[in-house]
Amino acid sequence: MNNTDSPWIRTVRLTKPTLQDNTADSDRLISALKSDLQTDTVHLDLNLLKKLPDLLRKWEYNLRCILVKDRHRWVVTGIAGVDDPRPFVGLAVDLGTTKVVLRLLDLSDGRPLGESGFDNPQLAVGPDILVRIHFAESSGGLQRLNELIISGLNQTVQDLCRSCRLEPRDIYTVTVAGNTAMTHLFMGIDPHGIIREPYIPVVNKPGILKAADLGIQVNNGARVFIFPNVGSYFGGDLIAGIFFAGLHKLSDTAILVDVGTNAEVVVGNEHWLIACAGAAGPALEGGMTQMGMLAGPGVVDKIRIDPQTREIHLHTIEDKPPKGICGSGVIDLAAQLYLSGMIDIRGKFLPAEYGSRLKEIDGLPHLTVVPADQSGTGADLTISQADVDSLIRSKAAMYTILETITTSVGMALKDLKRFYVAGTFGSFINPRSAITIGMLPDLPLESYHSLGNSSLGGATLALTSADCLAQTDHIRDRITYLELNVNPEFMNRFSAAKFLPHTNRSLFPSVEVWSKK
Amino acid sequence: MNNTDSPWIRTVRLTKPTLQDNTADSDRLISALKSDLQTDTVHLDLNLLKKLPDLLRKWEYNLRCILVKDRHRWVVTGIAGVDDPRPFVGLAVDLGTTKVVLRLLDLSDGRPLGESGFDNPQLAVGPDILVRIHFAESSGGLQRLNELIISGLNQTVQDLCRSCRLEPRDIYTVTVAGNTAMTHLFMGIDPHGIIREPYIPVVNKPGILKAADLGIQVNNGARVFIFPNVGSYFGGDLIAGIFFAGLHKLSDTAILVDVGTNAEVVVGNEHWLIACAGAAGPALEGGMTQMGMLAGPGVVDKIRIDPQTREIHLHTIEDKPPKGICGSGVIDLAAQLYLSGMIDIRGKFLPAEYGSRLKEIDGLPHLTVVPADQSGTGADLTISQADVDSLIRSKAAMYTILETITTSVGMALKDLKRFYVAGTFGSFINPRSAITIGMLPDLPLESYHSLGNSSLGGATLALTSADCLAQTDHIRDRITYLELNVNPEFMNRFSAAKFLPHTNRSLFPSVEVWSKK
Repeated sequence: MNNTDSPWIRTVRLTKPTLQDNTADSDRLISALKSDLQTDTVHLDLNLLKKLPDLLRKWEYNLRCILVKDRHRWVVTGIAGVDDPRPFVGLAVDLGTTKVVLRLLDLSDGRPLGESGFDNPQLAVGPDILVRIHFAESSGGLQRLNELIISGLNQTVQDLCRSCRLEPRDIYTVTVAGNTAMTHLFMGIDPHGIIREPYIPVVNKPGILKAADLGIQVNNGARVFIFPNVGSYFGGDLIAGIFFAGLHKLSDTAILVDVGTNAEVVVGNEHWLIACAGAAGPALEGGMTQMGMLAGPGVVDKIRIDPQTREIHLHTIEDKPPKGICGSGVIDLAAQLYLSGMIDIRGKFLPAEYGSRLKEIDGLPHLTVVPADQSGTGADLTISQADVDSLIRSKAAMYTILETITTSVGMALKDLKRFYVAGTFGSFINPRSAITIGMLPDLPLESYHSLGNSSLGGATLALTSADCLAQTDHIRDRITYLELNVNPEFMNRFSAAKFLPHTNRSLFPSVEVWSKK
Repeated sequence: MNNTDSPWIRTVRLTKPTLQDNTADSDRLISALKSDLQTDTVHLDLNLLKKLPDLLRKWEYNLRCILVKDRHRWVVTGIAGVDDPRPFVGLAVDLGTTKVVLRLLDLSDGRPLGESGFDNPQLAVGPDILVRIHFAESSGGLQRLNELIISGLNQTVQDLCRSCRLEPRDIYTVTVAGNTAMTHLFMGIDPHGIIREPYIPVVNKPGILKAADLGIQVNNGARVFIFPNVGSYFGGDLIAGIFFAGLHKLSDTAILVDVGTNAEVVVGNEHWLIACAGAAGPALEGGMTQMGMLAGPGVVDKIRIDPQTREIHLHTIEDKPPKGICGSGVIDLAAQLYLSGMIDIRGKFLPAEYGSRLKEIDGLPHLTVVPADQSGTGADLTISQADVDSLIRSKAAMYTILETITTSVGMALKDLKRFYVAGTFGSFINPRSAITIGMLPDLPLESYHSLGNSSLGGATLALTSADCLAQTDHIRDRITYLELNVNPEFMNRFSAAKFLPHTNRSLFPSVEVWSKK
């Protein structure tokens, strides 16, 4: 059995039974797979068993098997003839509170086959996960929420498959990364304990389940791997991010920052991992993502101010007329205003530097970033002092979290060799600008790596990692969770970080140098 | 956790979650069970997970768990409050071709709760397993046979539970012992290959399945253990018998004989096992069980002939007027006729010894065992020369099988320390009579042990054996199967055994002594 396939797809050429070797069909297959995979347990579902005798004879005892590795055993989830042109497909799911993203993969070579997303249909119940958890307690509520997400997923899988000329039955492995509450709702498990003292989930390690048991309409034998969570506020989406970044395999200590609804941070290496997440301080709560618009056509994502002319140069997504400013644009703008000496170290507009571009609206200074005649909306695009103040609080909270978690393990931010930034935030942000305003630490720019959707990335990687359960268990079991809310120095650090770039300027040497250019 | 329960029923008193210990509900339970059972994998089904949070709080984190051990993991199949009066029940099933026998057990103490049997509803398709296998190949045939046995089982489980004041949902573990074909039909798996060269089953080791997947209406989380088979002609019923007798654990070599439709014989000890079964020669095929009637009220099961008066003394089951003679009665009769000098060493009636009790009917001598005026039928109960001839062939075949299998491992029958006789045959037979006619070897009477229904016995024992999979795998994997049909000495031995007790009288010293008394 010379096998050049991946561990989870095995081409098996069985010796045909004879009077001298009348081993049963399934035992023949299982024993070949055991020796091929060097394992002592291979499981075959009853449904496959029933089909086996006819198919083995039709295929003359040559076949391809698709498997998934559970903790202590390999499970055969599907079989096909060696010449069957249909691919074995994997489905990775980023199970977001707001948006669910799907990616199809050819399991034989890891080639992406298609991607799609849909708004989480539970938004109809409530945008906030808290509202949904309360709704789950009402009669039939849990079932309703479960049906919404499962039927939404089934519909999108069907549409996505059609557009890729595949069928849902081609999908044999599914991986799902979501936060703890979404994971519970996905499994139809009461998330009630998650939001009530002492804040305990029903399950931390869902492991591998049957797709059919979850109501997911893919291949009948398909298995679903659900990423484990550490607790109520540290979910499988973050474990997926760590798994994707490979933090748990690095010899040098690295950091991973994921900014979604909350800021979630993990510091660690192959020996240890420490994490914090959740209510990270009043300023950051909901702050970072409310800043400006979400990225989309016509949204300003990059801003540069000419230090001489103080002219504002913009870049919009798809080069459409500007309609709004997204988070990365606002950070660029604040950095450029600061470097041009147009705001002070507290982030306050210095009126003398603006002329007519600074207007007072409702008693609050507003800077016109794009005048009405150049904007895509026909109105001025402005940013107010309150917007900048909010950004300052957000960036201070972010820096404080980074500093607190790093200090807690006896390290300084400058000791970090790699800085992974996940999420849409990470994809768009200019690290140079984030450093300038003191949101991110002053590391060499090459230390920064954007991971994109790390939850989807982790789910995708899990599809092609035979040992993903072992790895994610390993990650989960070694994470120490740091409670920021009870950290006595947090507020002191936060106050010190509310300046541009920081009260302690020596922490940001590159900003000094650069701003004097 | 001081646990005095059995390994598969654990009383667990969990520490309640706190802010300092916010382990998830299921992880809390699983980790307690892991340490309690000294294992590294405990699995909990999604259905139990869903119920867990409410129940744990209701029970204040004290509960009883019922588990079953799969090959590499313990599986929690049910949970209950510590004061719940409902028992955890196990169901053992002897899945016979003709009759199915069920036994309920209290899993906490192994106490039998009830027993019931029903005629295999597949008899409607055909009495013979061959007919059923052919029928399974017709359109819808396999499904029909599967439905017949499953619905028959479900109905009887329901009736039996009602009569025991239990409910089917109290049943958490089911064990099933049947021959290879019945096992396949029970799982809805095509048995076609079993009867066609090279005679291979679809599955040898079904292992542990979900009752729900098989359509068995017991507790939703219940698991079903199906005894493995060695091949098409050596099924799980026989493995169950070996498991029940404990042959695989004995330091001295023992033998197990099961006479049902065929004679099946296993010789072995803790180090090795050798078995033969199936078409055991023309005389035994269908012979042993067609001899006389099945045991029932009024059936003659014991016969003694006064050596002086030659009067026949009978015992009938339930002391009812005699209606017929069962196998053990016929063996007694032949032994007594021989010891009284009324038949010769070939088993031929010696007419001078009978007077009017020997009549010729259709040209064949018939011995009147019970005259019409004393019988329960109003007619003479007779036994013909052809009946005795048939018994001689059967007993010769049996002895030849025993001799052949024992010789094949370089032993003599007299070396066997224990002789287990299974089945109805074993329960009724008088070993002294069987030795006298040379059907069983001349071992000390205390070597003989009747096992009764060893298939049901093995299934029952499996319910209370945490390591039954390991043990039955062990038995299965070390059995050598001996093909009697290809043994060149078989016919020579058979010819030598067709005398009373044997051509080589030195093999039966006790018969010599006893007959001279």
